[in-house]
Amino acid sequence: MSPPRSAPRYTGIRTFASLEHVPLAALAAADAETRAEVAIVGIPFDTATSWRPGARFAPEAIRSASVLLRPWHPRHRVEVLREGAVVDAGDVGITPGNAARTSDQIAAALSPLSAEGTATLVLGGDHTVALGELRAHAAGAGPVPLLVIDAHADTWDEYYGERIFHGTFLRRAIEEDLVDPARSLVAGLRGSLYSPTDLEDARALGLELVTIEELRALGPDGFAAGARARCGSEGVVLSFDIDAVDPSAAPATGTPEVGGLSAAETLAFVRALAGITFAGFDLVEVSPPYDPPAQITSLLAANIAYEMLALAALARAR
Amino acid sequence: MSPPRSAPRYTGIRTFASLEHVPLAALAAADAETRAEVAIVGIPFDTATSWRPGARFAPEAIRSASVLLRPWHPRHRVEVLREGAVVDAGDVGITPGNAARTSDQIAAALSPLSAEGTATLVLGGDHTVALGELRAHAAGAGPVPLLVIDAHADTWDEYYGERIFHGTFLRRAIEEDLVDPARSLVAGLRGSLYSPTDLEDARALGLELVTIEELRALGPDGFAAGARARCGSEGVVLSFDIDAVDPSAAPATGTPEVGGLSAAETLAFVRALAGITFAGFDLVEVSPPYDPPAQITSLLAANIAYEMLALAALARAR
Amino acid sequence: MSPPRSAPRYTGIRTFASLEHVPLAALAAADAETRAEVAIVGIPFDTATSWRPGARFAPEAIRSASVLLRPWHPRHRVEVLREGAVVDAGDVGITPGNAARTSDQIAAALSPLSAEGTATLVLGGDHTVALGELRAHAAGAGPVPLLVIDAHADTWDEYYGERIFHGTFLRRAIEEDLVDPARSLVAGLRGSLYSPTDLEDARALGLELVTIEELRALGPDGFAAGARARCGSEGVVLSFDIDAVDPSAAPATGTPEVGGLSAAETLAFVRALAGITFAGFDLVEVSPPYDPPAQITSLLAANIAYEMLALAALARAR
Amino acid sequence: MSPPRSAPRYTGIRTFASLEHVPLAALAAADAETRAEVAIVGIPFDTATSWRPGARFAPEAIRSASVLLRPWHPRHRVEVLREGAVVDAGDVGITPGNAARTSDQIAAALSPLSAEGTATLVLGGDHTVALGELRAHAAGAGPVPLLVIDAHADTWDEYYGERIFHGTFLRRAIEEDLVDPARSLVAGLRGSLYSPTDLEDARALGLELVTIEELRALGPDGFAAGARARCGSEGVVLSFDIDAVDPSAAPATGTPEVGGLSAAETLAFVRALAGITFAGFDLVEVSPPYDPPAQITSLLAANIAYEMLALAALARAR
Amino acid sequence: MSPPRSAPRYTGIRTFASLEHVPLAALAAADAETRAEVAIVGIPFDTATSWRPGARFAPEAIRSASVLLRPWHPRHRVEVLREGAVVDAGDVGITPGNAARTSDQIAAALSPLSAEGTATLVLGGDHTVALGELRAHAAGAGPVPLLVIDAHADTWDEYYGERIFHGTFLRRAIEEDLVDPARSLVAGLRGSLYSPTDLEDARALGLELVTIEELRALGPDGFAAGARARCGSEGVVLSFDIDAVDPSAAPATGTPEVGGLSAAETLAFVRALAGITFAGFDLVEVSPPYDPPAQITSLLAANIAYEMLALAALARAR
Amino acid sequence: MSPPRSAPRYTGIRTFASLEHVPLAALAAADAETRAEVAIVGIPFDTATSWRPGARFAPEAIRSASVLLRPWHPRHRVEVLREGAVVDAGDVGITPGNAARTSDQIAAALSPLSAEGTATLVLGGDHTVALGELRAHAAGAGPVPLLVIDAHADTWDEYYGERIFHGTFLRRAIEEDLVDPARSLVAGLRGSLYSPTDLEDARALGLELVTIEELRALGPDGFAAGARARCGSEGVVLSFDIDAVDPSAAPATGTPEVGGLSAAETLAFVRALAGITFAGFDLVEVSPPYDPPAQITSLLAANIAYEMLALAALARAR
Repeated sequence: MSPPRSAPRYTGIRTFASLEHVPLAALAAADAETRAEVAIVGIPFDTATSWRPGARFAPEAIRSASVLLRPWHPRHRVEVLREGAVVDAGDVGITPGNAARTSDQIAAALSPLSAEGTATLVLGGDHTVALGELRAHAAGAGPVPLLVIDAHADTWDEYYGERIFHGTFLRRAIEEDLVDPARSLVAGLRGSLYSPTDLEDARALGLELVTIEELRALGPDGFAAGARARCGSEGVVLSFDIDAVDPSAAPATGTPEVGGLSAAETLAFVRALAGITFAGFDLVEVSPPYDPPAQITSLLAANIAYEMLALAALARAR
Repeated sequence: MSPPRSAPRYTGIRTFASLEHVPLAALAAADAETRAEVAIVGIPFDTATSWRPGARFAPEAIRSASVLLRPWHPRHRVEVLREGAVVDAGDVGITPGNAARTSDQIAAALSPLSAEGTATLVLGGDHTVALGELRAHAAGAGPVPLLVIDAHADTWDEYYGERIFHGTFLRRAIEEDLVDPARSLVAGLRGSLYSPTDLEDARALGLELVTIEELRALGPDGFAAGARARCGSEGVVLSFDIDAVDPSAAPATGTPEVGGLSAAETLAFVRALAGITFAGFDLVEVSPPYDPPAQITSLLAANIAYEMLALAALARAR
Repeated sequence: MSPPRSAPRYTGIRTFASLEHVPLAALAAADAETRAEVAIVGIPFDTATSWRPGARFAPEAIRSASVLLRPWHPRHRVEVLREGAVVDAGDVGITPGNAARTSDQIAAALSPLSAEGTATLVLGGDHTVALGELRAHAAGAGPVPLLVIDAHADTWDEYYGERIFHGTFLRRAIEEDLVDPARSLVAGLRGSLYSPTDLEDARALGLELVTIEELRALGPDGFAAGARARCGSEGVVLSFDIDAVDPSAAPATGTPEVGGLSAAETLAFVRALAGITFAGFDLVEVSPPYDPPAQITSLLAANIAYEMLALAALARAR
Repeated sequence: MSPPRSAPRYTGIRTFASLEHVPLAALAAADAETRAEVAIVGIPFDTATSWRPGARFAPEAIRSASVLLRPWHPRHRVEVLREGAVVDAGDVGITPGNAARTSDQIAAALSPLSAEGTATLVLGGDHTVALGELRAHAAGAGPVPLLVIDAHADTWDEYYGERIFHGTFLRRAIEEDLVDPARSLVAGLRGSLYSPTDLEDARALGLELVTIEELRALGPDGFAAGARARCGSEGVVLSFDIDAVDPSAAPATGTPEVGGLSAAETLAFVRALAGITFAGFDLVEVSPPYDPPAQITSLLAANIAYEMLALAALARAR
Repeated sequence: MSPPRSAPRYTGIRTFASLEHVPLAALAAADAETRAEVAIVGIPFDTATSWRPGARFAPEAIRSASVLLRPWHPRHRVEVLREGAVVDAGDVGITPGNAARTSDQIAAALSPLSAEGTATLVLGGDHTVALGELRAHAAGAGPVPLLVIDAHADTWDEYYGERIFHGTFLRRAIEEDLVDPARSLVAGLRGSLYSPTDLEDARALGLELVTIEELRALGPDGFAAGARARCGSEGVVLSFDIDAVDPSAAPATGTPEVGGLSAAETLAFVRALAGITFAGFDLVEVSPPYDPPAQITSLLAANIAYEMLALAALARAR
Repeated sequence: MSPPRSAPRYTGIRTFASLEHVPLAALAAADAETRAEVAIVGIPFDTATSWRPGARFAPEAIRSASVLLRPWHPRHRVEVLREGAVVDAGDVGITPGNAARTSDQIAAALSPLSAEGTATLVLGGDHTVALGELRAHAAGAGPVPLLVIDAHADTWDEYYGERIFHGTFLRRAIEEDLVDPARSLVAGLRGSLYSPTDLEDARALGLELVTIEELRALGPDGFAAGARARCGSEGVVLSFDIDAVDPSAAPATGTPEVGGLSAAETLAFVRALAGITFAGFDLVEVSPPYDPPAQITSLLAANIAYEMLALAALARAR
């Protein structure tokens, strides 16, 4: 009948939702009985962004904004923040200015978790961080089905000669055979493009693309049905780029595009994915320097991460 | 055909919408012919908030943002800011750090107005201020029907031992027999909860609860019909917690929850209540330190207050 | 398959979307073969605003926010930023503190372009700048059909004795026979008014008015059909006041009104105008001092300007 | 031994330092016994600024920041905020966009006070407001001695054809014979200039100029001695442009210049003027839109106004 | 020759300067050999502030701003952040809205550390937190010598009936015999007062008071000599209220006063205290909501805390 | 006697101080008579920063803040912004995420200017940009004398394996024989260090180091005398890292250190260098995302750049 904590939720060192902090190394070394089911992992890397940097501070900011989260999800009727089952594993050590080395560091840090069946919830960083993350997932399981919610397809080939960049990660991941494009889908596309062939090029990789207008026409249930049909219900990786959301609800991001999802739409689309089992999640491209004073982007990001944890809890509960 | 004021609306000491300032004491002492029909009253108290403080500055900020308001409401076709009928009574003197004493101060300050039939429009402050306000209303009329628009039910029992807190006000008000739960309704509920029983506990108090999804499904007319059915059409108190609104439109509040009402939805739901006569209104939980630079939360709050005044003007006009 | 620029889009002197800068004088002197089809022109004038100033910095801020724009419009399937066809002509030299003289300066600066058939896309400035702009358009063509998207009708007669003001520009333009009210329409009206006759006065000028509720009920296609029926399909001037948009998506404006269009609605309503040929466009009332830190108003404004350029490109392509 | 107010100082309608609000008309009509000694008057006019507008909101912002001021000045040992002796007279009604008419309005509003010997403390507005203010002072007393603390001499002749502008007010005032240049001094000059003759032109008007380096070399006592020698000790008008202060301590101003006074230096220079009797004061060029989130410019401005009131109280006490 | 950390300092869960997190309970239970010499403790309490709240977020913000701190202090030539010797003990659980109960909680949490000789560095919270802190220090040692750097004496008796408030903590502490006024000193006083007796009342308690002007005249060495003469060299408690600093360098605080110390002065005054052994330190009144975007107040606060740790390291090294 | 421009300085495409824009290629191709004496060049690169990114937007922001600059420098009595002599050459095309390639791009872009004797004034970007810049200077002249004003020595060897980083540029430049350490000096050092040997390591490279305390003790004249003695009077490169300035005056920078120079001190130290002839200048590490709302860091940076241009104008005038 009352808040169970003896002190205000804004008390204490900031971990995600005040969850226990179990460093990555300790987590990898834990035995099967005590191992967490989901590990939240920050990756404070933003070298590879084409406009506004700052996503290096997203893990800190999302943790800060997560203090309001309470354990029980009334729509899904599931306990999301179960002690022991979900932990905050801290951040991956990355190398600013070096996307290639950072991708290796991420893969090395996350692979032990993926190998043991611990789902990872990555808090980026720019979208480049998904490359290392997908390497970890694919290391054991082979090419994974990937469900991306994003304003951009991120399938360009290079930026000014740089091949690992936040707008190229998905092409790289397909080239490296980390993602199975035939079981993958990118939804929420919008905004101006470099050329008429941009989307054709992405489709030529084997991906299914859903524009924002198509997504709205589908609605949450239609989207979820399509996602299940395309990606299957097991071992999917869900990658959410915060720029899928409209700048009014998520102003603080590297390459904002007007006309995106509202917060209510965002919650509805993510909640509709209940029933899919996810190998991992990421939430990328929050850029906190552009978020003051109310930090609504980080707040929304914390809630999307919470919805991802709820999807994991539902799968666990089945 | 032109703005009737001889000087820009941003000229002059800031009262709500540049209305005449009649201090509370003078207002209580006025005789029946000259007494205002609605008194706007600030209550700058924010001791009892569980995350972001700052609502102490809301009365100032809402007055500041109200300079744009013009007297005529084109949808309702009613003059809202009628000279003499509506006045700004200034602020109640409160005691920061002492919610119990402040509740007494509020009740003492507002009771003379309620006793004389002057409707009060309270600008909070955190939601705790409603406790003193409801004591004033109930002093003469007995338990009142209460219509709350809020992301949270505010029926928890205590916070870290504190019993008068912004998340407990409604439980306290029912315990003190200020509110008739059988004629009361809380709409707009969303967000994570402490436990599966949080909402059941609230319903056990006798309240009707409407989630944000149910509210959207009802639409403004359905909501208004339900409100009239539940609360009746006379002597209702309307309490609007700004966190019912989405952080994109109301970022500056103590405990923001993503996925709330848009500004357009907000106006529609409040306007639909035309036809009910209200004993009082409050607009709470605006936290101005989180509102710069465009202060859109205070602007929306000023407009919600204006819609409340329009509801009062409509009732008066009947 | 990759971004065509050899350097990041945030490199270089800020012109709109990194387009070539051709000063107004050079543009007027160009011969017919090499002359641009559309000239973007900043008018940094904000003397005549009734609440928040700052629109003098809008041309700079919109150019800054336009760096993300890419040349290809995937919905209209048209190349928007064609080299040579669209140029940034810099700013008109204006006189702060003197709306009458500034209106003359604007008319003098833009008339040569209008005379040669170069469409102008004006980045205001407050809405007063439309008076000089309409003088330029009407100089050769006579009274023009005007399509306004705005929260306010801007048909008041004067403000505190000032006759050229952002809330009076449309009355002045009709009085000066620059606009043909019978072929003109103002859509998006909302907010409180000075008196019950405000809208009647506007209609008495011959204008068609569409409130925000009516606009939403029409939807993009209904609106576009009505606009074509009213304004015709040739030589129309489109004037977009950013306060048509809700403060959640466009907080930085001189006289914000809550309850406006979302960004997605905005794009849809503007895109629906495909098929009309426009003599000119303006985008007014962005006030950058109220836009930090993410500058979402300027970003939306840059995108609306881009949609205007797309409408021009479509007309050109027919 | 304790704060004398029964409620927090942030309670109530915002007048300067919570002083009684006596409107200008009532003040002018008061009889000699009850008339205030100093009237604080806001002039929310910012049409005539050459870079950043926003000073129209300075009276509101300075009043807001003044809530912290307490009555007793421990350095001067004088009661500054004596009830009845000092009042807040509200704002002068001005005409945005019309500096000439506004100057007339200011002169008309303030002349009755000057005529009765009530000192005025003007809260601008841009520096143009001093023209009307000086007309009121000179109406009875003839050309006044003027002591200006400012980064700029404000003696240019016109801006783009406009003759009443914030950078021309002092030349206009001398031309109108409102100021006696031989008894006037401008201190704090710095920043780049249009031409080598700018300062010679100002000196040719008869003014004494003191650069920021000279001012620092003089120190507070040397400055005060020089001011007394130049301006005399009776009937002086003190005009303080907040851009005399460094942007680190006063960022929110229309034309900031780096390298100005610190807050501590500012207090020391103003306090050193004890012993001079002032006919009036003004504090101009605070631009609140550039002040969030901590509003330190308005806070400093409120304190400079307080120091001015202290100088008036000291003169009264002699 | 290079940064010793393998990853950027902005990587990882935010503890102060990335120090090890040892919760309070674990710290109290440690045995003598492994016990830390200094424990950093956050106290996120801001109920008792008389203007701007928000200090509840100061421990989080100061930890965030501390990531830049490196271990070696080149002026004192001492290793400040020695592993094991200095730890971050997290936050004390407090009760918002209840200063009396919170003071008890603080005393109970810190007493075990004081009893074992672990120095505490408290990150407030408002200045009220010093009351509980001083109870812990005095529990074993009796009344302590207290060295306060603050704009205000904090010796008022009550605020609107509240006796435990940020402006009364020092009077309460003396009444409770926690502080030995004869060995205590408050330096940095400035700003307007409630009455001529405010400072006399403080002196009547036995305190020595040093105004900001006197402090500047003394200089760092004179101040330190006076502090040693007054407070002695052993077991002193140093309390630093960030409002001792000028708003230009520390804008984000509850009751800012213009004219305070610069950052350079602040460092010099604190560094001059080398040679004194401190039983504890506190750094209070940082209010992060007023600090965006560059968070310079939290940055300065983190550096003052670092200087305190350096003083402790020097004492340890002797 | 009046501003010479016919329109406000905030009118027009933003080049530095509204100077003519001559692209780098055109500049390199110009013949000797018409070639500019100083070229302002933006380098929007910020990949290699160890805390707060954002310096990629500094060239834009400094140009924006430069609109207030007027041509005449009253202290040096020199015309600074002489038409034709000083131009804005736009930005160097860089490669985000690749410091090595970017350094090559910078050297290639600037070498033609250095070869022809055009001084360059680089607006960074993070301090890494100085490496490419120094390669251009040394290409013809051999190792140059370098005068650095900076809080940090930037002589670390690597960061997490990265060898070209903003904290390593000076070591790299010495290793590449671009800088003659025996004729070079770094002034303004302060802040905590990684180890006791950090400064010894820098001195071992042959550099002279001056701490902030030593710099203040020297004063402007002593500093300038020392700089001339160390660096000589010809062909010196002046590199100014904005973090030499205190965060109160320059909050927006990548690695702020408290206790730095005030703006007045900054101007005095730079002005004292009159008499030295400079081969080039750079102004680095301004991070605009941390600068709203008044953008005082960019304003100070624009003024420091102006002082650099004044030093160049003085040398030219000799």
